[in-house]
Amino acid sequence: VAYGWLSFLTDYGNEDGFVASCHGVIAGLAPHARVIDVTHEVPRHDVRRGAIVLAAVVPYLPESVHVAVVDPGVGTDRRGVAVVTGRGVLVGPDNGLLCPAADALGGPTSAFELTDPRYRLPAVSATFHGRDVFAPAAGHVAAGLDPSALGPAVPPDTLVRLPVPVARLVDGPAGSLDAEVVHVDRFGNVELAADGRLLAAAGIVSGSPVLLGTPGGQWDLARVETFGSVPAGEPLLFVDSAGRAALAVNQGSAAAVFALRAGDVVRLTRADR
Amino acid sequence: VAYGWLSFLTDYGNEDGFVASCHGVIAGLAPHARVIDVTHEVPRHDVRRGAIVLAAVVPYLPESVHVAVVDPGVGTDRRGVAVVTGRGVLVGPDNGLLCPAADALGGPTSAFELTDPRYRLPAVSATFHGRDVFAPAAGHVAAGLDPSALGPAVPPDTLVRLPVPVARLVDGPAGSLDAEVVHVDRFGNVELAADGRLLAAAGIVSGSPVLLGTPGGQWDLARVETFGSVPAGEPLLFVDSAGRAALAVNQGSAAAVFALRAGDVVRLTRADR
Amino acid sequence: VAYGWLSFLTDYGNEDGFVASCHGVIAGLAPHARVIDVTHEVPRHDVRRGAIVLAAVVPYLPESVHVAVVDPGVGTDRRGVAVVTGRGVLVGPDNGLLCPAADALGGPTSAFELTDPRYRLPAVSATFHGRDVFAPAAGHVAAGLDPSALGPAVPPDTLVRLPVPVARLVDGPAGSLDAEVVHVDRFGNVELAADGRLLAAAGIVSGSPVLLGTPGGQWDLARVETFGSVPAGEPLLFVDSAGRAALAVNQGSAAAVFALRAGDVVRLTRADR
Repeated sequence: VAYGWLSFLTDYGNEDGFVASCHGVIAGLAPHARVIDVTHEVPRHDVRRGAIVLAAVVPYLPESVHVAVVDPGVGTDRRGVAVVTGRGVLVGPDNGLLCPAADALGGPTSAFELTDPRYRLPAVSATFHGRDVFAPAAGHVAAGLDPSALGPAVPPDTLVRLPVPVARLVDGPAGSLDAEVVHVDRFGNVELAADGRLLAAAGIVSGSPVLLGTPGGQWDLARVETFGSVPAGEPLLFVDSAGRAALAVNQGSAAAVFALRAGDVVRLTRADR
Repeated sequence: VAYGWLSFLTDYGNEDGFVASCHGVIAGLAPHARVIDVTHEVPRHDVRRGAIVLAAVVPYLPESVHVAVVDPGVGTDRRGVAVVTGRGVLVGPDNGLLCPAADALGGPTSAFELTDPRYRLPAVSATFHGRDVFAPAAGHVAAGLDPSALGPAVPPDTLVRLPVPVARLVDGPAGSLDAEVVHVDRFGNVELAADGRLLAAAGIVSGSPVLLGTPGGQWDLARVETFGSVPAGEPLLFVDSAGRAALAVNQGSAAAVFALRAGDVVRLTRADR
Repeated sequence: VAYGWLSFLTDYGNEDGFVASCHGVIAGLAPHARVIDVTHEVPRHDVRRGAIVLAAVVPYLPESVHVAVVDPGVGTDRRGVAVVTGRGVLVGPDNGLLCPAADALGGPTSAFELTDPRYRLPAVSATFHGRDVFAPAAGHVAAGLDPSALGPAVPPDTLVRLPVPVARLVDGPAGSLDAEVVHVDRFGNVELAADGRLLAAAGIVSGSPVLLGTPGGQWDLARVETFGSVPAGEPLLFVDSAGRAALAVNQGSAAAVFALRAGDVVRLTRADR
């Protein structure tokens, strides 16, 4: 089966032409296919952030070959893999980057290590596997190559997975919850690992007053539906467009106000109990 | 009528994958169409800057569905609209963002509010209408949907418009003019609301010496044709590629030298009278 | 001959819509063709950096019309040219930007000055030749126009070339070499003008200990294959994905550690002789 679409995510940035070289390799192998750039501004080597962004975007893309490269281990013995799901194929390093997106596409059904030299560039550099290994593999798959031709099967349960971020009730079903910051976006909105269901399990529903505890302090805010539900400059807790609990400040930056970044754990407690 | 092209402008930035989710929604609805990204680096919530950039670009694009989202009021009761012109359709929030571009395309001939749920995603988030409302509407129109199907007609003269920036003669036809800074580009070039005709009406023509008054001081410069008309480091007044009067410093930044930003008003006076 | 692909490199940045206007002009003239953006983040007026990036990318692109605009001389009498090679056509200002890429595509076989007004926009601004001159020329060539129709032939040996960067043995074949920094990438990796062959001619092969002399000091490091060959935080000398000798720090920034930037010259000496 050939694919009409690819997606592409890296930490390469857009200054140096690295992304364009990969686009060129894909264009040569699958000239019919079109590429949607997910982002190339993942902070260098931040596998976790790359994984979060990719998983949030893939449900909205057409069925695709998704190439993702955030690869601090390039040139070491970490595996390169193609992960097949019920809704597309993911190609990249086996370092945890791909699994959340694979789960968002229904979970991995099979996986293959990228070892067959026929599906790499003739000369593979030690430092640019995006161009020399991953883009060629993806281009071949988009052109119709069965992923099983890329190399030996990898049992999906041996794929490297990142630690599951903290998201748990603390004092029983109507008490508090602890949740890890998984993403801070360009607007300073702080996305938590908890979803709306876990908020509700802690008794936090639309309109609830909430006490927020961070590593640095405590704040009162409200669980509301959207930014405009509170005055400009006021904080809020809402369920964001990825379905996750998130902290924001209307027309401000929650990350700055609450001094939060990815990996921090916050406690949310319904305040009127 | 279907469209082969869309354009896309936002303040989403390119780090978080927001833009890619919208591209994915469009790709699913109008896979034949191609998207030109105008910019996604509009400063957050800067509706005015987004409007200026969009209006400068659309005359050079093929006939398109133009999606633009700079939307500080997302989740409030501001309208989402499709604005039909003689040369394409604009889709976005009704907050002034679209009208200058509509004018550049001949003016709005009709407009429709985006209310029909069939042309939104099944679940509409409170905070990401780019993905859930505007991209779907644009994708459907690109695929051939008549914009009137999107929702009730909106009289074009009720569309929200930004204040018209200052651009006026001060002391009669051969005297001075006041002009508002409408845009500062990446090079520090300062674009004014005045055009070359207004400059001429003030007696300022190619070669004229000019006195520039800013909120912070006064400078002498020349009205010339291009950067290279003055030595490196010297200021100039010229008519830029959008047809507007603009201040620049050859191989430098006029915004830095003159301490100007969007919204400031400057006075230009022919200096040899 | 028509082209199915173009590439596009500028120093326009992505904030102001300049790039999109050019895309629009190309789309109007060659709607069948697709454009790969090489980068638009070349530092303003840095012709040399643009030339290095373009030359590194073009070998990996399909046969294309390559438009490149880093043009401090816009509006002066510098020529605009189309440079024909055995593997595609380059279009841009004749200021040295295009020649390294032309060489990477087999060398210029002919060149033409962009003078025929039929292949420009009807109104040519003094400051935005990317949109008004270069994009139209490239669009016409992509649509099948013979480049010789664009204007008078330019002898390829009169094309402006940048100075060749320093890369030379110092004390005979087994001694030291001097090499100029040609590029610092987003990761702080420092690319030198020397290639692996010149390293070998100086006796520096995989595993060799090396003494690095910079304008600011001296360091010991090893010539290895890739980042992971040394511990995190340690420096290395390797041959990068463009085939050039390069300095890096594993998970760090060589440019910061060694205080190097483009144009600096370093001395590499095999340290165990």
